[in-house]
Amino acid sequence: MISTLLSRLSRGTDGAPAPRLAYGADYNPEQWPREVWEEDVRLMREAGVNIVSVGIFSWARVQPAADVWDFGWLDDVMDLLHANGVGVDLATATASPPPWLTTAHPEILPVTDRGETLWPGARQHWRPTSPVFREHALRLVRELAARYAGHPALVAWHVSNELGCHNVYDYSDDAARAFRDWLRGRYATLDALNHAWGTAFWSQRYSDWEQILPPRLAASHPNPTQQLDFKRFSSDALKDHLRAEREILRELTPDIPVTTNFMVMPGIKGMNYADWAAEVDFVANDHYVVPGPRDRDELSFSANLTSGIAGGRPWFLMEHSTSAVNWQPVNLAKEPGELARDSLTHVAHGADAVCFFQWRQSAAGAEKYHSAMVPHTGADSDLFRAVTALGDTLRTLAPVAGSEREPAEVGILFDWESWWASEQDSHPTSLLDYHREALDWYSALLSLGIRADVVPTGADLGRHRVVIAPVLHLVTAELAKELTRYTEQGGHLVTTYFSGVVDENDHVWLGGYPGALRDLLGIRIEEFGPLPDGRTVEVEGVGSGALWTDRITVTAPGTEVLAHYGTGAQAGRPAVTRRATGGGSAAYVSTRLGADGLAALLPRLLEPAGVGSDLPAEVRGRVEATVRRGPGGRFLFLVNRTDETVAVPGLTGQVLTGGTGDEGAVVLAPRGVAVLRTTTG
Amino acid sequence: MISTLLSRLSRGTDGAPAPRLAYGADYNPEQWPREVWEEDVRLMREAGVNIVSVGIFSWARVQPAADVWDFGWLDDVMDLLHANGVGVDLATATASPPPWLTTAHPEILPVTDRGETLWPGARQHWRPTSPVFREHALRLVRELAARYAGHPALVAWHVSNELGCHNVYDYSDDAARAFRDWLRGRYATLDALNHAWGTAFWSQRYSDWEQILPPRLAASHPNPTQQLDFKRFSSDALKDHLRAEREILRELTPDIPVTTNFMVMPGIKGMNYADWAAEVDFVANDHYVVPGPRDRDELSFSANLTSGIAGGRPWFLMEHSTSAVNWQPVNLAKEPGELARDSLTHVAHGADAVCFFQWRQSAAGAEKYHSAMVPHTGADSDLFRAVTALGDTLRTLAPVAGSEREPAEVGILFDWESWWASEQDSHPTSLLDYHREALDWYSALLSLGIRADVVPTGADLGRHRVVIAPVLHLVTAELAKELTRYTEQGGHLVTTYFSGVVDENDHVWLGGYPGALRDLLGIRIEEFGPLPDGRTVEVEGVGSGALWTDRITVTAPGTEVLAHYGTGAQAGRPAVTRRATGGGSAAYVSTRLGADGLAALLPRLLEPAGVGSDLPAEVRGRVEATVRRGPGGRFLFLVNRTDETVAVPGLTGQVLTGGTGDEGAVVLAPRGVAVLRTTTG
Amino acid sequence: MISTLLSRLSRGTDGAPAPRLAYGADYNPEQWPREVWEEDVRLMREAGVNIVSVGIFSWARVQPAADVWDFGWLDDVMDLLHANGVGVDLATATASPPPWLTTAHPEILPVTDRGETLWPGARQHWRPTSPVFREHALRLVRELAARYAGHPALVAWHVSNELGCHNVYDYSDDAARAFRDWLRGRYATLDALNHAWGTAFWSQRYSDWEQILPPRLAASHPNPTQQLDFKRFSSDALKDHLRAEREILRELTPDIPVTTNFMVMPGIKGMNYADWAAEVDFVANDHYVVPGPRDRDELSFSANLTSGIAGGRPWFLMEHSTSAVNWQPVNLAKEPGELARDSLTHVAHGADAVCFFQWRQSAAGAEKYHSAMVPHTGADSDLFRAVTALGDTLRTLAPVAGSEREPAEVGILFDWESWWASEQDSHPTSLLDYHREALDWYSALLSLGIRADVVPTGADLGRHRVVIAPVLHLVTAELAKELTRYTEQGGHLVTTYFSGVVDENDHVWLGGYPGALRDLLGIRIEEFGPLPDGRTVEVEGVGSGALWTDRITVTAPGTEVLAHYGTGAQAGRPAVTRRATGGGSAAYVSTRLGADGLAALLPRLLEPAGVGSDLPAEVRGRVEATVRRGPGGRFLFLVNRTDETVAVPGLTGQVLTGGTGDEGAVVLAPRGVAVLRTTTG
Repeated sequence: MISTLLSRLSRGTDGAPAPRLAYGADYNPEQWPREVWEEDVRLMREAGVNIVSVGIFSWARVQPAADVWDFGWLDDVMDLLHANGVGVDLATATASPPPWLTTAHPEILPVTDRGETLWPGARQHWRPTSPVFREHALRLVRELAARYAGHPALVAWHVSNELGCHNVYDYSDDAARAFRDWLRGRYATLDALNHAWGTAFWSQRYSDWEQILPPRLAASHPNPTQQLDFKRFSSDALKDHLRAEREILRELTPDIPVTTNFMVMPGIKGMNYADWAAEVDFVANDHYVVPGPRDRDELSFSANLTSGIAGGRPWFLMEHSTSAVNWQPVNLAKEPGELARDSLTHVAHGADAVCFFQWRQSAAGAEKYHSAMVPHTGADSDLFRAVTALGDTLRTLAPVAGSEREPAEVGILFDWESWWASEQDSHPTSLLDYHREALDWYSALLSLGIRADVVPTGADLGRHRVVIAPVLHLVTAELAKELTRYTEQGGHLVTTYFSGVVDENDHVWLGGYPGALRDLLGIRIEEFGPLPDGRTVEVEGVGSGALWTDRITVTAPGTEVLAHYGTGAQAGRPAVTRRATGGGSAAYVSTRLGADGLAALLPRLLEPAGVGSDLPAEVRGRVEATVRRGPGGRFLFLVNRTDETVAVPGLTGQVLTGGTGDEGAVVLAPRGVAVLRTTTG
Repeated sequence: MISTLLSRLSRGTDGAPAPRLAYGADYNPEQWPREVWEEDVRLMREAGVNIVSVGIFSWARVQPAADVWDFGWLDDVMDLLHANGVGVDLATATASPPPWLTTAHPEILPVTDRGETLWPGARQHWRPTSPVFREHALRLVRELAARYAGHPALVAWHVSNELGCHNVYDYSDDAARAFRDWLRGRYATLDALNHAWGTAFWSQRYSDWEQILPPRLAASHPNPTQQLDFKRFSSDALKDHLRAEREILRELTPDIPVTTNFMVMPGIKGMNYADWAAEVDFVANDHYVVPGPRDRDELSFSANLTSGIAGGRPWFLMEHSTSAVNWQPVNLAKEPGELARDSLTHVAHGADAVCFFQWRQSAAGAEKYHSAMVPHTGADSDLFRAVTALGDTLRTLAPVAGSEREPAEVGILFDWESWWASEQDSHPTSLLDYHREALDWYSALLSLGIRADVVPTGADLGRHRVVIAPVLHLVTAELAKELTRYTEQGGHLVTTYFSGVVDENDHVWLGGYPGALRDLLGIRIEEFGPLPDGRTVEVEGVGSGALWTDRITVTAPGTEVLAHYGTGAQAGRPAVTRRATGGGSAAYVSTRLGADGLAALLPRLLEPAGVGSDLPAEVRGRVEATVRRGPGGRFLFLVNRTDETVAVPGLTGQVLTGGTGDEGAVVLAPRGVAVLRTTTG
Repeated sequence: MISTLLSRLSRGTDGAPAPRLAYGADYNPEQWPREVWEEDVRLMREAGVNIVSVGIFSWARVQPAADVWDFGWLDDVMDLLHANGVGVDLATATASPPPWLTTAHPEILPVTDRGETLWPGARQHWRPTSPVFREHALRLVRELAARYAGHPALVAWHVSNELGCHNVYDYSDDAARAFRDWLRGRYATLDALNHAWGTAFWSQRYSDWEQILPPRLAASHPNPTQQLDFKRFSSDALKDHLRAEREILRELTPDIPVTTNFMVMPGIKGMNYADWAAEVDFVANDHYVVPGPRDRDELSFSANLTSGIAGGRPWFLMEHSTSAVNWQPVNLAKEPGELARDSLTHVAHGADAVCFFQWRQSAAGAEKYHSAMVPHTGADSDLFRAVTALGDTLRTLAPVAGSEREPAEVGILFDWESWWASEQDSHPTSLLDYHREALDWYSALLSLGIRADVVPTGADLGRHRVVIAPVLHLVTAELAKELTRYTEQGGHLVTTYFSGVVDENDHVWLGGYPGALRDLLGIRIEEFGPLPDGRTVEVEGVGSGALWTDRITVTAPGTEVLAHYGTGAQAGRPAVTRRATGGGSAAYVSTRLGADGLAALLPRLLEPAGVGSDLPAEVRGRVEATVRRGPGGRFLFLVNRTDETVAVPGLTGQVLTGGTGDEGAVVLAPRGVAVLRTTTG
């Protein structure tokens, strides 16, 4: 569906018939006087904008009272944008309920686990499970869809906004009712639920469905399976809302693709996007950098994972920022070059759209210090000039539009269920960070110049010669079989500490760890070995381990020890093992080595698979490479990860943007991104 | 009115007709058996006490039930004090409602933003906006005023106590109702409110006044203008309570001055005392030192600001401590000399009364470890001896009574609205501290031996050759005009980073920062430059900047660069600028230099105004000087800021207290304070 | 009663008639299929288990609905255990109410001081004062007692579980009602209560009992006596529940001893176990190590205090862990040897039972990562082998069973009332830690090899030549007299800073500190001298003091100064004093010296009493010695505190376990424990 959308944008300023990359932002004209709109569309043309998202927070404006509708201004906006060649990704406007609704129905307000109401004043103050909210929201969706069904500006639907950003966990009575329904669907009988939740423990046996509650504030740790199921339910409750809106849109505008903006970005954990992806016509993502020593790696990782969620197909970068945001403790402006580099890194990982929050920086409200395409200073600014330059670059990258990612030899498995389960309370350690461990592996591969795909569970593992599954904590019997089959068919699996420990009910696989993966890995561990904060152990020839150290007993003859502990309670015992399988192998890393340690270890892990970097040795770690392939050809993206000029030798192809040089070398400016067409489509 | 009060105290022990400085404490005889009262008044005479505040927490005692009044004990107290020459600042006793009232009317209890009730058990558990509380409180005020209207001991009324210390922010339904009324008064129409609050953002448009709520716990950042207005409203709600009590007192005792004790002190931000000052007959303040490296500067700053709030007229130090308090993490006793030095520093800044919490240290209750004039140990103690010595000193300073402060050449503008607005959430940085920046400037001036007045917005700027306005974040069109006029008439304005950014509705002044002050300063900034915590940049020839660093473009020909950045993202660009105006100038400091950096920079900033220290070079920074002038003459206060003896040469005048020496030098003991009469009245 | 119990266990595997030490765990068969139970009893026999606690969290299982009882499975369990020679400590199963009860009666759920409900999902979600809960709980107790009254497996009753672990402080309306009743019992009249609480302060005078509330969230510090009484009440409310269950058990099974598991362990402060001890037929304790530099000392201290609470008689270690727990930030497995050493240290201090939570590690639920006797890995594990070895050791220690502790020359007074009172808010310092100070003294004595008994207030002080009373903050007139009498009769008292300050109503003893102990100590202090965090002062010849430093004036001729301050505000003044009394003495230590400083000071403090170590000099501090004496003889326990081999020379006696060697030396393995019978019974 995304290609249809992109080709509709070709009605843009240049009139070319071929698809183009989309470029734009959230557009909130209702915050400005009418005369500003004229400047807006003039500047959009100047910047090369061809798509905007409209109406995201317009509920109170289009429906100022329960039975009053005011579409006139929006008609005007849609017409004006269309007249200026800008397509509209029209929001369903349900993200933030208006004051009249919450006043009439305070029972739609979310409730925290401590029983506190989340009041209006900000945004997203609605219970995902409220029937009252649902009724009002769907009525709005239907009105909007009916009115704009045939409008020529309409190119996509944008359901709600950042679903779950603030309201994923609601503990209200509505949530309790819906949770029970969800549990009935999952378990069918109370006996099954009692078994799954282990309610024989702590006298928790339920004798009636009505007794079940969300894991509200309790005297001690709530039941862990209750907690895990509540996470699943909460993700599903929002997904259900997404589907409810989508169904109306599909009914009224079957030809318009529907999406919603995911948040594959730091700090967002509650929504299982891998599970949601099938619900949208194309995947869209919001991403904001949180400054830190590995923020560049994280951006790449998130873009890569978004691509994985999208099945390798093109996706939409629906929001990022031109410069500073407003919600971090200190909000740094971007340095020169960062705006383009960040945007193009997303394109390198499959984004066919580069959009921002927002078009024009607000003068009032909670996000007035969030940067935009047109800053407070106005169009006469370095920032708007950088925005316009990026628009030019994206025009030159039109051939890339519609291309998919070329699978990498290495896949990193990212699993929401293991993320949720591995970080629950009352565990061996509270210091475990699932996402950080996955990012460690990704960073290590980046530093070695080895391409890797981040893929969700359920993806076809057979596409990768090596699959790395960090902290694969929750392993069902089926997944254990799938992994075994993968290695028997020649695949090389790498996993880590605290993997294979529990099943889908968060029940421990008995008989010794790593439980479900014990036989596959050919090892056995009797007790977990978490390390206190700040304590490290040496792994000989590799580096320093933290967080964890297992006492491993090798149980299978085909298991070799790749590295031993040099210090700590397990000194002299195995730290990293690998069992040879039919053509493949299964390796286990029993401590947190961090990006540096993993970079030292990875060559040994990848060696049997014969995987290495396809970048020249001198630029490995300094340049990130990705490959997209589609109707327009095969495209090699080179992202300069440094603040210095980097020359990449030995390349052939047509430089579309960003690189200069001769004799086969592409010279990247500091923070520069080059795109080469290596074959035509 | 304060002079009337002071002259009534002259009926004290010495019988002299002239006004005297007041000396005393809160007196809570209801905590002690009757026989202790006799010792109390004997010791008061010994210590030179001539005023006490009575009845502050006596509601439950004078009105033990809804329709029961018990004034007998209080009659006794009043008579006893009068018989011993001690005047009474009689409290209206409404600070802490009695258990019978909160039991009958739990709806008067405050509610937090999370919906938690603040229960009885401590004090000040009442909603400023509760009509039920108001009714009961005013009934009590009327009864008290009627009973003691003609009592000869009565010299002043003390409304409630530390209004807003614990209950300034109440989010109850009463508060919601009152907030709506207040908003109607401010905005008249919903359209005006919707515009001011920017409700087009995040779908917050109100269609009925009843939809509006206080900024209770929300899913994300509440609307910033709603937050700012709630701060204004909360200050006004308490002011309204103050006025309601005052009106009854004025009706029944028109000749008795009315005050309430402000809290110009660390950690208190909610009450706009500059705005409250007009409501009282004389300003009274409570001040407690919070130990730290700049606690001495802070004490002086707060006393100075109190004087500014009082319009330079004398004020009352209603509470401070003889030694340790009880509410800090560690409560340190005062070192020898500190009691007198702290007290006299307040007098140096215009206090005509030195009072303490409290007279006799409690044996029970939450403040039993708070020091008093008579400690647990009793009168045979170093502490009571220091108290008596201070009484003697204050007697020798009787000529000072009634004198006003002599304006200084430098004024520091302290603005509650900018304080509130600049520290709101979702800003470029969460590390900004308005009060600390103002104190930085004050400390720098102290270290240079330059006198400065801290004045609130609205004061006559023309009295000062230089006006320093740190972080003047909220600037109305009128204020911008006033500042421009000031510089055009020869005044020298200095302001800093994050100034001039928003208007009274917290809307950004567009077109480039510093918004409303851009033309006056002759510079333009496109993006804010907050610095991460711990990061600093060098300012050449000045020192090290933190928190902030702007990328400044000079836009007016008359703007010179006083200092450049030496390091950081803006290295080589302007750090401090000054634009010459008609006879005056407007300077901008774009980073937080701290007291040391400002001390290095200030000579350059003050140079065009020709302002310098009037202290001998060798004592600058070691001695703080203030000047009061009144009917009794002109008085120079010299406070030794060090723990060493300091000789101040070249002084002439009559030493009233504290200094010794000959040949024109005044020799100050460690921590000593000297007062010289330099001219007679 | 414990000896009856122990001799009933002699029906164990070896059939010997003499009492034995008990060995076992919580046993939760309802979490496992029936077939696992057979393996359970087989492995219990293998490990030497002779007692298990059953039914602790079985309420929902035995009473699945209000009028449904299901005892069949429990009959089966009881029979199976009996058939295998395992006695049952049967729980009353009331610890965790089942879902049907909380659904029908949500009014039994506890409420926090902020008004938050503690919901089901974990455990112990019941108000100690709920009449509804009480009725249901007692009905269950009666059913259980009636059914199993004559069962041959039943050897003891286990009331509830860890009473107060999560629900000691409940602020509900039930708690308010019960608090009022408790206060009526304590004070009889409102006047007495008003005086005790000092309600003249802050207008808190009560005119009706119904006005009184628990110290819920307030605007400032709640009344301190209210807080202290609420702590007393909360402990008593749980004690009352204990008594209510016990009464039914005594009625139905008068011959079966009743206990409940105390938690004398880090972080537990709310229950006054010294006061509870008289309510049980034998004392039982749960103890879990919190890793840290002094965790070994703390384990010994807690075991010692448990013995003190038990009056020196044998007690039950009802729970500890075989290895890691699950509720700390990082849960470390025990190192080899630690399991036995920890267990035997408890035995060394009087435990006649070594029990664990739990028998078989759960596969599901909140404690599935808590270690057990049979781990996830199963019986083929190092852990189960260590468990079995410990069972063997305990069998060899059968002669110890029933012996009491031999009093030590030094007693450390541990006082719950001073603990509670000294750490209240609005004090001179918030850094004071009562338990840490007591442990400091204990650690110092351990390092010197000097035996000491930790005893609660009320114990016979005359058994000890030296009594150390750290931070004895709350001293009643009676206690002051008792201490005076003790020293006059030759006893040597040592106390510290912040002692003797308040009476039972938390009213300050006036006239100078240390109040009630001023005359006994012969000193006087005018103001408290808390030190800021991180600040220290030197005590000459002793070490470094923190937290506190008093300005001491010696007031009695017989008071000598043992050490002076070398630095700080009191440099040159007394730091440690001792007043000679009739044969005894009273010493005062005015700062926190820590374990090292106290070890340096103690020889001087102990010298007049002639107390020293009875261990050879070369092993002092490396070995802990305790002595038990009973029908079986006198037993010397030697615990190797180090990770190295230690030889203890000069010992004679029969080595029962753990030591080897010849020529009078006992050689202890690293972490080893030896037991010598030095005389026969």
